[in-house]
Amino acid sequence: MGNTIEGLMSRTRVPAGFGRSFRAARGQYIAVADVEGGQTCDFWAFDARDFDHYLSPPYVIMHIWSLQPGQGHELVTNRRDPILTIVHDDVQRHDLLCPACDQNRYLLHFGVSGHRNCHDNFLEAMAEHGWGSKTVPNPFNIFMNTTVDPSGKVAIEKGLSRPGDRVILRAELDIVGAASACPMDLTPAGLKGITDVEILVGSDLAALKAAKSER
Amino acid sequence: MGNTIEGLMSRTRVPAGFGRSFRAARGQYIAVADVEGGQTCDFWAFDARDFDHYLSPPYVIMHIWSLQPGQGHELVTNRRDPILTIVHDDVQRHDLLCPACDQNRYLLHFGVSGHRNCHDNFLEAMAEHGWGSKTVPNPFNIFMNTTVDPSGKVAIEKGLSRPGDRVILRAELDIVGAASACPMDLTPAGLKGITDVEILVGSDLAALKAAKSER
Repeated sequence: MGNTIEGLMSRTRVPAGFGRSFRAARGQYIAVADVEGGQTCDFWAFDARDFDHYLSPPYVIMHIWSLQPGQGHELVTNRRDPILTIVHDDVQRHDLLCPACDQNRYLLHFGVSGHRNCHDNFLEAMAEHGWGSKTVPNPFNIFMNTTVDPSGKVAIEKGLSRPGDRVILRAELDIVGAASACPMDLTPAGLKGITDVEILVGSDLAALKAAKSER
Repeated sequence: MGNTIEGLMSRTRVPAGFGRSFRAARGQYIAVADVEGGQTCDFWAFDARDFDHYLSPPYVIMHIWSLQPGQGHELVTNRRDPILTIVHDDVQRHDLLCPACDQNRYLLHFGVSGHRNCHDNFLEAMAEHGWGSKTVPNPFNIFMNTTVDPSGKVAIEKGLSRPGDRVILRAELDIVGAASACPMDLTPAGLKGITDVEILVGSDLAALKAAKSER
């Protein structure tokens, strides 16, 4: 990582199957990079002044009138306030439906106990911000490919992101964020292996677009 | 309402545009009746022993693998526990996507301030249970007709329920519930006028199916 990235405030490597938190000030850009490709990143953003005010996928759906967020979309909170705008999107295929995987997801659906999971990754990542054991909000699942057929049937398909693909979000509030490189290795979303994600926060959009993530 | 309904525990008239709470014990049935037809009922159910444990539409979607809940479907909580089962459904068209309408929904989307709304109806109905000002969970919108096209585009259409149509749910936990006869009169969901809903709780499924609601 020797090369300098103009205007970079922070660079957070989220290890495969783990979670990390980060901060961004209003007006800064957050790049979420899929290092190897095909990796879902569960993503949360909170108003840094009030953690009861947060990015909320159900409110996003009824704000953009679509299950498919993409470049140009404004993402809103549980109070319908803009919190992030998607200013760049290499993939245009993400998920707004799926709650974070948790112990029960693995136990009930796959008979596996003790599996790493995004719910607990969130709690680990947010512990330093005093989250405690409060209910975990629904994440925005970046690079996750969920399909809905005309009858309403929902399925999880293989993600479409390639190595280095990124989504770049502009923060519309000062935020505390969390990201989990989803450890789900039992659906098409993760059958090819769980890999790292990178979160870059900076003031220079062009620099974040051009930044390379080491594999 | 002179006629007796076998095994009836409670009968709650939810006035058009307002909210009410109710209780049901595990194993009892909850009938949600659309008195006049075409009326959305925002519906919440909580574990009576722990209000942080509740019916959660995003978890339901990934449990039934569909946006369209209907007869026979088990509905789950934010911990993936069964809380209700749909044992009877005259309509088979409901909504699991839409957050409760709130002051901002009317203000931002229609320029209307001071409109009655399901968010505040919930807070009014749950005040007697000590809810306070905690975040309002996403409701299950019974009789609401939301459509999703193949591109993911979401729209609210006119509801399909006829006068007297009902959904009957079996409680899988002791629950405290809340219902709001949605005051939204500015979308196709409510353009024909806002009307009453009835919540009947009882032990006799056949009696709840046969019960008539006075118009």
